[in-house]
Amino acid sequence: MARWQPDAPGRLAAAALDLFEERGYENTTVIEIAERAGLTKSTFFRYFPDKREVLFDGSAVTGLLVEGIASAPPTAGPLDAVANAFDALDRAFFTLDRREFSGRRQAVLNANTELREREALKRIDLTASMIEALDRRGVPILTARVAAQLGSLAWEIAFDQWIDPGNGEGFGPLARQALTDVRAAGAAH
Amino acid sequence: MARWQPDAPGRLAAAALDLFEERGYENTTVIEIAERAGLTKSTFFRYFPDKREVLFDGSAVTGLLVEGIASAPPTAGPLDAVANAFDALDRAFFTLDRREFSGRRQAVLNANTELREREALKRIDLTASMIEALDRRGVPILTARVAAQLGSLAWEIAFDQWIDPGNGEGFGPLARQALTDVRAAGAAH
Repeated sequence: MARWQPDAPGRLAAAALDLFEERGYENTTVIEIAERAGLTKSTFFRYFPDKREVLFDGSAVTGLLVEGIASAPPTAGPLDAVANAFDALDRAFFTLDRREFSGRRQAVLNANTELREREALKRIDLTASMIEALDRRGVPILTARVAAQLGSLAWEIAFDQWIDPGNGEGFGPLARQALTDVRAAGAAH
Repeated sequence: MARWQPDAPGRLAAAALDLFEERGYENTTVIEIAERAGLTKSTFFRYFPDKREVLFDGSAVTGLLVEGIASAPPTAGPLDAVANAFDALDRAFFTLDRREFSGRRQAVLNANTELREREALKRIDLTASMIEALDRRGVPILTARVAAQLGSLAWEIAFDQWIDPGNGEGFGPLARQALTDVRAAGAAH
């Protein structure tokens, strides 16, 4: 048994990102990722089922999103509950020190079909988690599905703005603004 | 050179669906699919780059969707243009004779992560095609993105209803109703 490694998943993800940038996703092996991180292959597989998964440690994001929707004031409408979740992500995940990594990660994902597919499915799962969290607040199911779609779009818009190297704003304010814009565009239909 | 085969892609998809149902996606080879369809492996690869793609001959769907949005009356709003595209799909693709196949295909996709991932990415590509088609009508980009998200949700709702064995309605009326419902739920935000 390998000894406990502080933040092993984070180190593995950072090492993987470096290697995917240097030589491409296809040309990188799990062993190389583990070595670059100063860890073993078996440590890698304790955290990730395969190479494709190493950039998708999204359980924290899902947890913050679901908890953020649940903890919105009882009077908050569905999109206000989603805005509350974006604030939680701003505070605990999309922090300034993660911005550069997030931008580099997105560029690597965009360049590879396998990774784009995995990302697409993760996004569907995330939207499903939003719908469930809204459902638990008593939001009617169709309203919850629409809110999750609009929330997902606002997230995408805000995230692209946030990782832009020229951007100085935090994820939270950008996401709230995107949600306001999306809501206004939706009301026009 | 193999001789020309009438509807080879359709026969390959039907054979693949049979085999995926019988023995699972993982346990089926391209050679077995080609043999079941009475075709050769090289014919298979003339139409599909890999096994994963055999159930995703979606170019017809994309074409109908884009053309349906483009051909809506100039005065039609973005969601009305999307409704026009759904009517086109109803007439030319989601026809009664394709309903049983569509339902079986969806069950196979839902059961396999690789296929779900491919489907998720195809859906993103389809949404992007809708956005482009709306953009060419002069719809502002954010309005187009919202309309495409709502259209995509209405499609999903209507498709699930359409393939239900107990359903007797056509895809077009179901999709128009779903779009009306989604629009009403969106306006409530």
